Amino acid sequence: MNLILLDSSELDASGSACLADARATHMRTVLRVSVGDDVRVGLIDGGRGVGTVTAIDHGAVVLRCVIEPEIPPRPRVDLLLAVPRPKVMRRLWAQLAALGVGRIILTNAERVERDYFDTHLLDEAGYRPLLIEGLQQVRDTRVPIVSVHKRFKVLIEDELDQLCPDGARLVAHPGVNTPVSVVLAGGRASTPGRDARVQGPARERDCDRVLLAVGPEGGWNDFELKLLDGRGFQPVGLGPRSLRSDTACVALLALVHDALRGHGAAGRI
Amino acid sequence: MNLILLDSSELDASGSACLADARATHMRTVLRVSVGDDVRVGLIDGGRGVGTVTAIDHGAVVLRCVIEPEIPPRPRVDLLLAVPRPKVMRRLWAQLAALGVGRIILTNAERVERDYFDTHLLDEAGYRPLLIEGLQQVRDTRVPIVSVHKRFKVLIEDELDQLCPDGARLVAHPGVNTPVSVVLAGGRASTPGRDARVQGPARERDCDRVLLAVGPEGGWNDFELKLLDGRGFQPVGLGPRSLRSDTACVALLALVHDALRGHGAAGRI
Repeated sequence: MNLILLDSSELDASGSACLADARATHMRTVLRVSVGDDVRVGLIDGGRGVGTVTAIDHGAVVLRCVIEPEIPPRPRVDLLLAVPRPKVMRRLWAQLAALGVGRIILTNAERVERDYFDTHLLDEAGYRPLLIEGLQQVRDTRVPIVSVHKRFKVLIEDELDQLCPDGARLVAHPGVNTPVSVVLAGGRASTPGRDARVQGPARERDCDRVLLAVGPEGGWNDFELKLLDGRGFQPVGLGPRSLRSDTACVALLALVHDALRGHGAAGRI
Repeated sequence: MNLILLDSSELDASGSACLADARATHMRTVLRVSVGDDVRVGLIDGGRGVGTVTAIDHGAVVLRCVIEPEIPPRPRVDLLLAVPRPKVMRRLWAQLAALGVGRIILTNAERVERDYFDTHLLDEAGYRPLLIEGLQQVRDTRVPIVSVHKRFKVLIEDELDQLCPDGARLVAHPGVNTPVSVVLAGGRASTPGRDARVQGPARERDCDRVLLAVGPEGGWNDFELKLLDGRGFQPVGLGPRSLRSDTACVALLALVHDALRGHGAAGRI
């Protein structure tokens, strides 16, 4: 926990918050704070700043907080993910928030088992603490926006353009060799001569945002791939190795973020 | 389990193996094999091929195997990793094998807790099944070579050049912004005009292999960084987000493999 995240409702009129949960335990037993010490704090979906310990009483810690007005930008990557089995989903939440994801769109697919939807890990009360844990690890404050969709076709055809109107769209599929960076490089209008290698919507779309679709462990089926293709998703992959969903998500998100950093610093590679 | 991995000692003179463990359970209950069915098999550190089910008896499955002579190449990335806490290490083994790592060198560092070395997960009997699980996921046969080193200075100064004589050397550190691809791009002699951005040994070293050093969660200390610098390790990072060890390892390995794929296909980016 490298940042103590607070909800703005926890601050009183003077900017103080009295914490009595795991955050207080962390401050007392790991950070070993005393009255007068400063800790890094952040407001959920708000700015970051400093909290000064003004009292420690019966295990509770009172912080007087000064929050900077600047709010971290929303991460530029959104994830469309076929719901993995609960054990994998549990591992993923904090990692997704830590890597930086603006929106997490969970969907059904043919190879998703029906009972994967029954877990409490898809309820906000189940996943939100895990997202917060990931944000606190990396000192971010922006909680990914989560939605769960049980009807893949309705999601892709009717809802997706509203959820994610802008940006390049990538679909990861086992066995595809085209690297993320190659497809996203097509979006860089400032790099003439490279478009020949890339076709399709990534060229026309705003590459400031990327929507990455990651399928079930066995991959998307042909119908699903065709629907995604029709909505401008371009295939990318990590080569012949068919990774577990959580490993694939982390690997692909790292590659997308890396490619976007390249977009920011023109001519990096 | 996308491949049933066998030890060559399990094959009799006729090329048959009688399996009665988790592999047999997987074939019976997940693959639902019958006599006459084929399954993908591989020999540990050997070739891959096909096993034909010749008998199913009391839960055991007998496979007659035909193994191709070609052996998958050893992955071109080696990992030098400060031992993370056991819970994280347990998660990592299979993911490292799945992503593809030739050698895993586990080391002490100042910010590694002493009791992290006490876990059975650092004994071969503890980690080998997890490595095999990762290989079976991605249909690889090459088991990473693992060594555990309790003395960081001795490892870096006296042992490392024998363990990893060739290749570029990268050290990941929280907060460093230089991307993996930029440092490894320096090794591409075929890309004139880019060397100016990269200095040091990656230019001279053979970029067919990469040794990646990933430190403890809080990062390496100054002494450790200086030792690594003296042995040709160049700093790389994922930017301002300080990820958990397992997330960082997966993200960085994905980036190194991606950069190496770029080296193979000259002019990819």
